[in-house]
Amino acid sequence: MAHFISPSRRVRDTPFTQGVEAAGVKAYTVYNRMLLPTVFENVEFDYHHLKAHVQVWDVSVERQVELNGPDAAKLMQLLTPRDLRKMQSDQCYYMPIVDNEGKMLNDPLAIKHSDTRWWISIADSDLLFWVKGLAYGLGLEVNVFEPDVSPLAVQGPKSDELMERVFGSSVRDIRFFRQKRLAFADTSFIVARSGYSKQGGFEIYVEDGQYGMALWDALFKAGEGLNVRPGCPNLIERIEGGLLSYGNDMTMENTPLECGLGKFCKPAEGLDHIGKEALDLEASKGSARQIRAISIHGAPLTPVRTSWPLMRNGLQVGQITSAAWSPDFGTNVSIGMVDAGHWEAGTELSVETPEGPREARIEEGFWI
Amino acid sequence: MAHFISPSRRVRDTPFTQGVEAAGVKAYTVYNRMLLPTVFENVEFDYHHLKAHVQVWDVSVERQVELNGPDAAKLMQLLTPRDLRKMQSDQCYYMPIVDNEGKMLNDPLAIKHSDTRWWISIADSDLLFWVKGLAYGLGLEVNVFEPDVSPLAVQGPKSDELMERVFGSSVRDIRFFRQKRLAFADTSFIVARSGYSKQGGFEIYVEDGQYGMALWDALFKAGEGLNVRPGCPNLIERIEGGLLSYGNDMTMENTPLECGLGKFCKPAEGLDHIGKEALDLEASKGSARQIRAISIHGAPLTPVRTSWPLMRNGLQVGQITSAAWSPDFGTNVSIGMVDAGHWEAGTELSVETPEGPREARIEEGFWI
Repeated sequence: MAHFISPSRRVRDTPFTQGVEAAGVKAYTVYNRMLLPTVFENVEFDYHHLKAHVQVWDVSVERQVELNGPDAAKLMQLLTPRDLRKMQSDQCYYMPIVDNEGKMLNDPLAIKHSDTRWWISIADSDLLFWVKGLAYGLGLEVNVFEPDVSPLAVQGPKSDELMERVFGSSVRDIRFFRQKRLAFADTSFIVARSGYSKQGGFEIYVEDGQYGMALWDALFKAGEGLNVRPGCPNLIERIEGGLLSYGNDMTMENTPLECGLGKFCKPAEGLDHIGKEALDLEASKGSARQIRAISIHGAPLTPVRTSWPLMRNGLQVGQITSAAWSPDFGTNVSIGMVDAGHWEAGTELSVETPEGPREARIEEGFWI
Repeated sequence: MAHFISPSRRVRDTPFTQGVEAAGVKAYTVYNRMLLPTVFENVEFDYHHLKAHVQVWDVSVERQVELNGPDAAKLMQLLTPRDLRKMQSDQCYYMPIVDNEGKMLNDPLAIKHSDTRWWISIADSDLLFWVKGLAYGLGLEVNVFEPDVSPLAVQGPKSDELMERVFGSSVRDIRFFRQKRLAFADTSFIVARSGYSKQGGFEIYVEDGQYGMALWDALFKAGEGLNVRPGCPNLIERIEGGLLSYGNDMTMENTPLECGLGKFCKPAEGLDHIGKEALDLEASKGSARQIRAISIHGAPLTPVRTSWPLMRNGLQVGQITSAAWSPDFGTNVSIGMVDAGHWEAGTELSVETPEGPREARIEEGFWI
């Protein structure tokens, strides 16, 4: 049964909410205490459209944590196992953030403005509080706060075309996970080639919410003829693409190594960070579980609300954390955490879904 | 226009969700990344029933932050301006938690198990991350984590009667903001006389979610004849009673002195805490704004979604953060933050609501 969401100031609107609601958003989730659209037409329609055309997404919920001050770079490196020493100031880095036990606190994208000024574009946890606590406790000279920045994403195969119409042709020169500051009206925004889909596109870091609707309107006006539509991260497409969701597929119970993020946790000479000892130990011993792409056979399943047990020979060997019917692949695509000894590709398991037990198979990789 | 909420694992169910949904919950909000019911019959029906009978509330969203270890008491006192030195182990303390600039990070209730073990029952922010960051940064010997504890509240004038039927007559001896461990089935729970209404009642700290539905069912079975119903924090009743909501009426932009919490921030010999300097300075200079009870004239208003400007002689002098039509008081009751020089009781202001400008008046106090 479907339930309504009650309005309140505590669940924050975004600078684009007016446009999102005028466009007929049907459902929301709450992410970082802010509204995130989840459905416009319906999840399948939105999915097909995203893969064929171009969409504008209100992803303001990707709040920024700004680190500003002489110790900003030092604190940034303490936060993550990823080596930031060679990061250039036009790069975006995906980076796991872990506590002293190596457990995931967030999996954000970082933007480096300079050695003394960084943004962390966060997933769904109040990373601000962890960073503020560390800065205070360690006596570091750095201000940590949430600036007035709300990302708007443009995603889909026609993203370059739409973005060029608003920001000019230089937008096409931005490489993957790089960013550039581009003019808009009487201001400018950081524009990155990034986003939470595998269809290509950009994220525009809208500084000062007052510009929100002007940018929203400019994109839709420029997109006439491109079949531009409002959209949002799409459950089916992101599972097919193996885009993990913090809070769904990984939580504070998990380490980045369990989540397939080992390549961002390589030990390096002179590199120190919080949680290093725990991650090094896990790397040498091996992980107890790993995230896998898993196809679940049979008719389309409804979304995961509480994790579904993965069974083998009557014993639980893991859990499914996200699932959706994929029209393009003709199966239920899913993401699951599987115990050591059971995660080999081709392994046949069963899943206890709310609609009864289903046969499932561990895939070689995601559906890309 | 009303919107649906999309299900996902990231927006967590509670140990009582099964009961809540079987009872016909109509709407939710998300609080601490978990479902919090907001409406059963309708907000006015739920309000009248709460004031006359007894309700069972799923307030699992009041997650606990446990501090456990030799430095737990030291860290607890650093967190809050409230003097904890005389706190007894059966007491519950409401305590503002501020950062080093004296800004509110949360306004939880603390429970002291012993000098080395505390729970903080949190409002809507990941206080866990702040406390973990401090513990790490300061090198304290204390474990900080979220235990498997989900509060269930029993609220309303018949609360003592219902609770006695489940926990025995000793529940009546629990004084206001005191707690006692009482037996249930083959376990026991901490039961406190507390809760987010002014109608009296208890909060049961359910340890181990597996006991959730057994307790839920036991309360409804015992409440036959008492007109027990499922309920939830009620917007109208909590505004009438002046129960502030973190994220609505106060945010990280505010200090506890602005929020009328000065009595929990009294400087004392030998008392030190994070943010002391900022709060002492504000106490000596006076606050820039203050929370007030404000009645808004005219027809019933819809809930606040983004704050409504409070105007006086054409200038903005504050904002309304929560509002609801009160059937019992025949006016729109509201909570607002008002700038210095404009907050005297009796001051006439106007409010820019989504339904147009309305006349308003600052009240002596809340509607209790």
